[in-house]
Amino acid sequence: LISWIENASAALPMIMKELAPDTGRAHVIGLTGPPGVGKSTTATSLVRALRARDERVGVLAVDPSSPFSGGALLGDRVRMQEHALDRDVYIRSMATRGHLGGLAVATPQALRAFDAAGFDTVVIETVGVGQSEIEVAETADTVLLLLAPGMGDGIQAAKAGILEIGDIFVVNKSDREGAQALVRELRTMIALGDRDAEDWKPPIVSTVAYDNRGIEDLLASIDRFRAFQVASGRAQIRRIARARGEVESIALAKLRAEFRISGDASLNDLAKAVSRGEIDPYAAAEKVVAGL
Amino acid sequence: LISWIENASAALPMIMKELAPDTGRAHVIGLTGPPGVGKSTTATSLVRALRARDERVGVLAVDPSSPFSGGALLGDRVRMQEHALDRDVYIRSMATRGHLGGLAVATPQALRAFDAAGFDTVVIETVGVGQSEIEVAETADTVLLLLAPGMGDGIQAAKAGILEIGDIFVVNKSDREGAQALVRELRTMIALGDRDAEDWKPPIVSTVAYDNRGIEDLLASIDRFRAFQVASGRAQIRRIARARGEVESIALAKLRAEFRISGDASLNDLAKAVSRGEIDPYAAAEKVVAGL
Repeated sequence: LISWIENASAALPMIMKELAPDTGRAHVIGLTGPPGVGKSTTATSLVRALRARDERVGVLAVDPSSPFSGGALLGDRVRMQEHALDRDVYIRSMATRGHLGGLAVATPQALRAFDAAGFDTVVIETVGVGQSEIEVAETADTVLLLLAPGMGDGIQAAKAGILEIGDIFVVNKSDREGAQALVRELRTMIALGDRDAEDWKPPIVSTVAYDNRGIEDLLASIDRFRAFQVASGRAQIRRIARARGEVESIALAKLRAEFRISGDASLNDLAKAVSRGEIDPYAAAEKVVAGL
Repeated sequence: LISWIENASAALPMIMKELAPDTGRAHVIGLTGPPGVGKSTTATSLVRALRARDERVGVLAVDPSSPFSGGALLGDRVRMQEHALDRDVYIRSMATRGHLGGLAVATPQALRAFDAAGFDTVVIETVGVGQSEIEVAETADTVLLLLAPGMGDGIQAAKAGILEIGDIFVVNKSDREGAQALVRELRTMIALGDRDAEDWKPPIVSTVAYDNRGIEDLLASIDRFRAFQVASGRAQIRRIARARGEVESIALAKLRAEFRISGDASLNDLAKAVSRGEIDPYAAAEKVVAGL
């Protein structure tokens, strides 16, 4: 199913129709943060802890594909080989580059496949830098934002624009120098955040994922957040927002495909005229929309 | 103008119409790479070198905005204060989060503003991780991909999916340990790349941007690439692709705005039904498109 999703198979509408009644149960945990903070290692530890509770766990690693690597990288799988023989764990890297509608269409569909296949929890790992990736991460039921000491100064972390989407902050590699300072910095940032009294206040959990330290704390925080979300009705609100984003992205991808099919020649001509300054891009877009 | 662009002002179509005849001259250099490789420092050095040639230079730093930081960060401006009093240098950070159509709409418009204002060269700095950011970077006339030793292993860099978009590779912080190894690794990757004999073969330039080392080499590589692109007709092809992407993004943003205005209630109802598994997202998208 996920291969079909990656390749934007024409069969997807039919497949998604069949899957729809079996969806809506899985808890989706978004795991995001800058490259190198230990997302894959943390995912592995989380899988281990969730397996100890006898949950069926899926992991979806969303990477921009690269012709150099042929898409998903072996490295991720190697790191997770501990779970390779466990039938109740499914780990998958997904390349979405070139997918019509990109991450916005492909990721929720893949989650839907995991969900319908009966996984209790799906961990979705995305690089937490980049507009689309951040948007994908924030559609998860629970967003873990990973940081690590020594990954560049605080300004660099803030620059990534990801601090505001974390439901739970994880300071991984917390045995390294600078971990305390990073926790303090995060605490200050959270305190300064624009948050109402009844809002969830993101906890900061310190972990050493490769050594499995702090993972139980992390799981406890995830449980607390989940309970808070369900009790406050926000879990449902986020789900609806996710579905809405998904529907909107598919609708836009359909429309974009229509530009390409029916209007390709005129779109190219318009693009040429825009590149020469003969027409402005708004007037050109107006013509494209009128032509639909 | 750029503030209006950030805020998606209703006046933009009119403004862009006025600007159109004055666009198409500026050379756009995309400067991209993972956080912490020294993009801002390199931009500063490039500005210095281009100023020495008496060019008017614009710098556009595209950052996902953050409520914590109030959008663009002071840090970038501080780093570039060297050029603060130079009337022929304009440096601007742009926040695009929340902008309808996001980076895909806002960035080309901002470049258009720089272009019409008569800047010879515009350096656009984006975090080179993330689907949208990579797409923005690759629309530049010339794409510099910055890497630095010690920023995580090769796998992490490849994961970012950015290696294939570099016209010129820059190994910054090349006085650090591991620089030689990184150059070798890149050379191997470039050799393995799927490239025809008449294609441009990306050179690797070693720099120490904070110390201004290697910047003349970099500028020479930029000049060579530019000459190659113009002579081969590829400069024009890329420009048209950029215009095409811009028109398409504006058209899609218009259509998305129409969903929101005319179909908001029905879109919300459909999203609820999808979140409950009562309807699949394709069927829902079909209804949205049919409702337009």
